[in-house]
Amino acid sequence: MPVSAWDVTVIFLWKISAFCANVRHSPKADSPMNIPHEKLDILIAGGTLLTMSPPGEIIENPCIGIRNGKIEFISKESIPADPRSDAREIIDASGCIVMPGLINVHTHLAMTCFRGLADDIPLMSWLNDHIFPAEAKFINRRTVHAGAMLGIAEMLLSGTTTFCDGYFFEGEVGRAAITAGMRGVIAQGFIDIGTPDQTKDSEKSIIAERFVERWRDRSSLITPALVCHSPYTCSPDTLRTVKAIAQRHGVSFQIHVSETREEVRLIRSRYGKNPLQHLHDLGILDQDTIAAHCIWLDSVEIDLLAEGRVKVAHDPESNMKLGAGVAPVSEMLRRGIDVGLGTDGSASNNNLDLFGEMSMTARIHKLFTGDPTVIKVEKAVEMATIGGARVLGMADRIGSIVPGKVADIILVDTRKPHLTPLYHPFSHLVYAARGADVVTSIIGGKIVMKDRRLLTIDTGSVMAEVRRIASRISGK
Amino acid sequence: MPVSAWDVTVIFLWKISAFCANVRHSPKADSPMNIPHEKLDILIAGGTLLTMSPPGEIIENPCIGIRNGKIEFISKESIPADPRSDAREIIDASGCIVMPGLINVHTHLAMTCFRGLADDIPLMSWLNDHIFPAEAKFINRRTVHAGAMLGIAEMLLSGTTTFCDGYFFEGEVGRAAITAGMRGVIAQGFIDIGTPDQTKDSEKSIIAERFVERWRDRSSLITPALVCHSPYTCSPDTLRTVKAIAQRHGVSFQIHVSETREEVRLIRSRYGKNPLQHLHDLGILDQDTIAAHCIWLDSVEIDLLAEGRVKVAHDPESNMKLGAGVAPVSEMLRRGIDVGLGTDGSASNNNLDLFGEMSMTARIHKLFTGDPTVIKVEKAVEMATIGGARVLGMADRIGSIVPGKVADIILVDTRKPHLTPLYHPFSHLVYAARGADVVTSIIGGKIVMKDRRLLTIDTGSVMAEVRRIASRISGK
Repeated sequence: MPVSAWDVTVIFLWKISAFCANVRHSPKADSPMNIPHEKLDILIAGGTLLTMSPPGEIIENPCIGIRNGKIEFISKESIPADPRSDAREIIDASGCIVMPGLINVHTHLAMTCFRGLADDIPLMSWLNDHIFPAEAKFINRRTVHAGAMLGIAEMLLSGTTTFCDGYFFEGEVGRAAITAGMRGVIAQGFIDIGTPDQTKDSEKSIIAERFVERWRDRSSLITPALVCHSPYTCSPDTLRTVKAIAQRHGVSFQIHVSETREEVRLIRSRYGKNPLQHLHDLGILDQDTIAAHCIWLDSVEIDLLAEGRVKVAHDPESNMKLGAGVAPVSEMLRRGIDVGLGTDGSASNNNLDLFGEMSMTARIHKLFTGDPTVIKVEKAVEMATIGGARVLGMADRIGSIVPGKVADIILVDTRKPHLTPLYHPFSHLVYAARGADVVTSIIGGKIVMKDRRLLTIDTGSVMAEVRRIASRISGK
Repeated sequence: MPVSAWDVTVIFLWKISAFCANVRHSPKADSPMNIPHEKLDILIAGGTLLTMSPPGEIIENPCIGIRNGKIEFISKESIPADPRSDAREIIDASGCIVMPGLINVHTHLAMTCFRGLADDIPLMSWLNDHIFPAEAKFINRRTVHAGAMLGIAEMLLSGTTTFCDGYFFEGEVGRAAITAGMRGVIAQGFIDIGTPDQTKDSEKSIIAERFVERWRDRSSLITPALVCHSPYTCSPDTLRTVKAIAQRHGVSFQIHVSETREEVRLIRSRYGKNPLQHLHDLGILDQDTIAAHCIWLDSVEIDLLAEGRVKVAHDPESNMKLGAGVAPVSEMLRRGIDVGLGTDGSASNNNLDLFGEMSMTARIHKLFTGDPTVIKVEKAVEMATIGGARVLGMADRIGSIVPGKVADIILVDTRKPHLTPLYHPFSHLVYAARGADVVTSIIGGKIVMKDRRLLTIDTGSVMAEVRRIASRISGK
């Protein structure tokens, strides 16, 4: 009798639902003999595992046990007949790359409402003539929630399991993330022009304090933070005030810096120094500050980043689309600065697919330096995973597949023409794969996307809601 | 009784399977009253049509009639009860962008066998230490056929309907294309080092002549051509010999030129002039020459391209990955030079998705010039469609959706989170869509991909064959 594909699957699942030896255990777990024989929540079996601990490590045909939201063990081979590996859900990862979920360290999710509204325009005109007026008119609690939900749907479908967002009505982003089962750093935004959620200058510190207190312990998925738009749209007083509140609460402070040459000229004419020097002199730069873009830096400013252990969010696709420039990332990495990858908002990218940013990061710095050996594929994947976790100050919890960390894991199906043959999984992730190749996404031990279907979001309703908002924006 | 989705579909199909008024007809078709009432082969109804004639034109909710492989009519609205619009197959394009199939003007399909084999290495070392040795050892008729079939599968799944390939054993690429129903320009390759299909120098002219004669009228899908690898790997005698044969037969001649600074230095030291000047002095540059890359040009060489009406193949992702540089494309376009988009081989890209090249082209020239208004989204789409057709000398047959042209058409499904909302279809195609969003591909009036399933290729077998080849290459 011929062996069918079904037989093979059954035999495979029987084999892998057995004990996994040569096992890395959670540091907190009891020894194998002492732990109760309760079922795992999920067992991921087979495939090619990239643990990212250390970056570059590849384990073929592993078993990963997940219980209570955390990674309990990783085994390198399987031995039958131990009940410890019995699981409520077994995921067959054959033909897949298994890796940490991607971490998008810089985005503005609600701007999905403006995706494709204004393209091929310089940053300052894009902001002043298009985005700021549209925000003033159309951004409110409802549109932020709808736009964030759409952005989260897109991210879950393309392998991102943690985002770091900054915008107005940021609590709505937190609510959307909790609904979707998505992990997020949500940074309430401040800027010295009137904003839809702040009418008076005096409100800033009250809003900042309340926001952090409200979201501090609300959900294991959510980490609150604060963001000032930029040194050219926020006064020294605003910057100091918001940073002080962030410091007092031990949350991260974020800011766009040195995105365009025009900004640098503006800050130099206003304060007589470069943007990062200006922020340094205000006491803004420390290890809990995430500086986005950082394109037009001199060597003194790179020193300031390195010495202050400031984190950097690199957004190459947005930077290119706005003609802004190329951040000196290979020099930053050489100096030991933590750099993560971000998409920026989807009005300036116009997508939230971090596979695109990995590919762009690997390519643009080869071009920019003229050296095709810089930012190798392993480094690009590192920046999108454990590197991003370091930027967010969350490397103890996410960014690699290690016993004891939360189970934020994705599966990338390589059984496709554009991912064949497979000599080197890191190469494919960076140069050939896209978000649409992610087939399963797990966050905190919960499956949120399976076989490309979102399990926590009604995609049709979410898209319909944003289409209604877009109709009002475009007046059609 | 509530109206179900099925009812809506039935009503929709009934409506659109009716006469289409306000119709552009094939110039060769009889008047509507005189043509026989035979069925159309395909009617595409609804969606958002980008005709690319003129570039930028958008028609909402059109009907497109296809008969005998050609576009017979395009209507802007529908009127019921005319049998002319009855069709064997009706494609509901609701929610889709309908556009000409993409044209990849520069690739080496068989190199899918080497995808990811050697990355993050300079061009000369990549060629001399990795690719040339691998080609010498593993490239033969069978591997070229298998690699080409895999590449064609990837291209059909990502919206490309015409490719222009250059390699050895190029007849195998032609055979693969015919099997798959893919349109291709196949250029037999020449280089002065020994190649797997040419052992003696004296064979070049015989092989070139025979190749063109054999493929000239073999299939409406295939156009033969000839390619010399580069001015640094081909002697003046080889270049002149092959170009003369191409000229005599009226087929295109292709060559890599000025891809790296190292090449320019090499040619200057060997011939005392820049590469394009060298080719010009050999009589190589004319309207039937396609020059790939063209990165390191001086203004005199741009003049040579413009004056000679030389066509250019732009391959930005490959150029970045190899750290080669950025071609001065916005200047070329300003000078009226025809520029199309290519992926290059998938060992140096490492994918064949032209949506990636559109996105990269729109971004990289904004960065390179510091001007975010250059290469607007409409121009990027033009370069991947009718612009590519001009480069291949096929603009009378492909590249736009016009009555009388062959029916090479793709549908891009926009009902996805990352393509929502939809203000501007060109923007989404360039900045947010990817090959995986293409749901249907039609070539010469035949549906070759539907609902993401290839109808002409057994994808599993094709991938398995290339995996076997890769096992031998990697020795695993």
